[in-house]
Amino acid sequence: MRLARFHTPSGEPGFGVVEGDRVVRLDHRIASFESVLAERPQPRADDPRGPAAGLRWAPPVGDHPKIVCVGFNYAAHAAESERSPDGTPQRPTLFTRFTDSFVGAGTPVVRPALDDSLDWEGEAALVIGAAGRRIAAEDAWRHVAGVTCVAENSVRNWQLHSGQATAGKNWHHSGAVGPWVTTTDEVGTGPLRVTTRLNGATVQDDTTDRLTFGFAELVAYVSTFTPLRPGDLIATGTPQGIGLRRDPPRFLRPGDEIEVEVSGVGVLRHGVVDETPAPLGREMLEATR
Amino acid sequence: MRLARFHTPSGEPGFGVVEGDRVVRLDHRIASFESVLAERPQPRADDPRGPAAGLRWAPPVGDHPKIVCVGFNYAAHAAESERSPDGTPQRPTLFTRFTDSFVGAGTPVVRPALDDSLDWEGEAALVIGAAGRRIAAEDAWRHVAGVTCVAENSVRNWQLHSGQATAGKNWHHSGAVGPWVTTTDEVGTGPLRVTTRLNGATVQDDTTDRLTFGFAELVAYVSTFTPLRPGDLIATGTPQGIGLRRDPPRFLRPGDEIEVEVSGVGVLRHGVVDETPAPLGREMLEATR
Repeated sequence: MRLARFHTPSGEPGFGVVEGDRVVRLDHRIASFESVLAERPQPRADDPRGPAAGLRWAPPVGDHPKIVCVGFNYAAHAAESERSPDGTPQRPTLFTRFTDSFVGAGTPVVRPALDDSLDWEGEAALVIGAAGRRIAAEDAWRHVAGVTCVAENSVRNWQLHSGQATAGKNWHHSGAVGPWVTTTDEVGTGPLRVTTRLNGATVQDDTTDRLTFGFAELVAYVSTFTPLRPGDLIATGTPQGIGLRRDPPRFLRPGDEIEVEVSGVGVLRHGVVDETPAPLGREMLEATR
Repeated sequence: MRLARFHTPSGEPGFGVVEGDRVVRLDHRIASFESVLAERPQPRADDPRGPAAGLRWAPPVGDHPKIVCVGFNYAAHAAESERSPDGTPQRPTLFTRFTDSFVGAGTPVVRPALDDSLDWEGEAALVIGAAGRRIAAEDAWRHVAGVTCVAENSVRNWQLHSGQATAGKNWHHSGAVGPWVTTTDEVGTGPLRVTTRLNGATVQDDTTDRLTFGFAELVAYVSTFTPLRPGDLIATGTPQGIGLRRDPPRFLRPGDEIEVEVSGVGVLRHGVVDETPAPLGREMLEATR
């Protein structure tokens, strides 16, 4: 099953199951998307159905998820980033993102007006379906609802402002998640291929059997220190091929189209727009997702 | 005013204004603690009142706050941490914490069963009262509801698992926030004294005029990349004197009592308990605050 969140053309939020080019809505009878991830309910004949076209996808995560991202988790990317010269790291490198640093599939991401170093990072991500703490690696898949695609885009100059990546990883609407969560019964637990395309040309391409810390190990490590709940997301790391390490560097700019494809899951597409110029200060901004 | 969240002896959540040793409840007429932070309403004569004793304090932040913490923000602490040998950093070092990494005042924090390197970090923290993005430093105080105390405790070995501090900063219930937010009209915008006591002995003691990045600068920097909303928290950094840098190191253990005092704000007290032994794996944990 493909579990998705969206807004209707009139702006109403909803969630349900994607079947081909149609969406079965479940929000009329199920309380939350977290419950959908936990229960993975089969659609019924009388659930409302409609075309997926015209819907605006939202990130297929919980309302207030923990979002944990893993850095340098493919050896080739660690090498291009000049990390781990002394061999394989002993522990995952983790940072976090706020939910509003992401948009849903099909919505353009925002390049900061202040800085032009927005870079792509295609990734496979796990979405949690069953709460747990201190989950053993061998039990990890029982806690995963499914897999989604993440454009874990980073504002490189801000990522390097200090030793901690937080600022460069949390620019508002700089990344994307989606279009949906493909459930584990469908995507399986075997290696997945993660491919990023920039305007149709492949720029990142690797398989998750080459992750330094695999999916199950990541669930175990993260849940050692913090409880995981339905709707939480673990982005598992990006392959070699980021724009920063090109000569000269190639960063995202308006008009670009990124596709992040995870095999068996789907394709996450997004464009790029410039931040709307706004006066510094005095701007009051309502919460937006 | 002192704005607080709590649970009653029967476990019911509430919020209101602390007046001496009594609490005026506002939750019967105001929708959320975020609204209290935004509006700072005066108590009315007919608001319910009762003794503060017997209440269990909860972290005085929003229901789903962004929690941003600043590292190495006092020069003496940066020096003890062997940072910034080449002078003052150009940008703040930021990391984030999940809300459930904190308990409220008076509740003991949890020392991990796996690791005994839980260390104290007393801090002053800003709680946001008015939403904003790209807030100019000169406007920052208009967006701050008030100041609270944070025990930004860290599991040092896990903080050093990788180059990113996330794992060591997010152990469940390892830190504390509170007991309340003292509003800016009362606490003022001048320097505050931040003191941490371990079993009555002062271990950290500095003033916020010695922050490398001051309160207003931090609001400006963070809001450059992410929107801030009522209930969000910025922990502004810890002074020199952490347990890791003692010889030998001195970490927190059951029986210890920590007090974090911020002048004009209050005193945050917490004890320390060992994590309840639990079987690895298979543990299903409900969301707890």
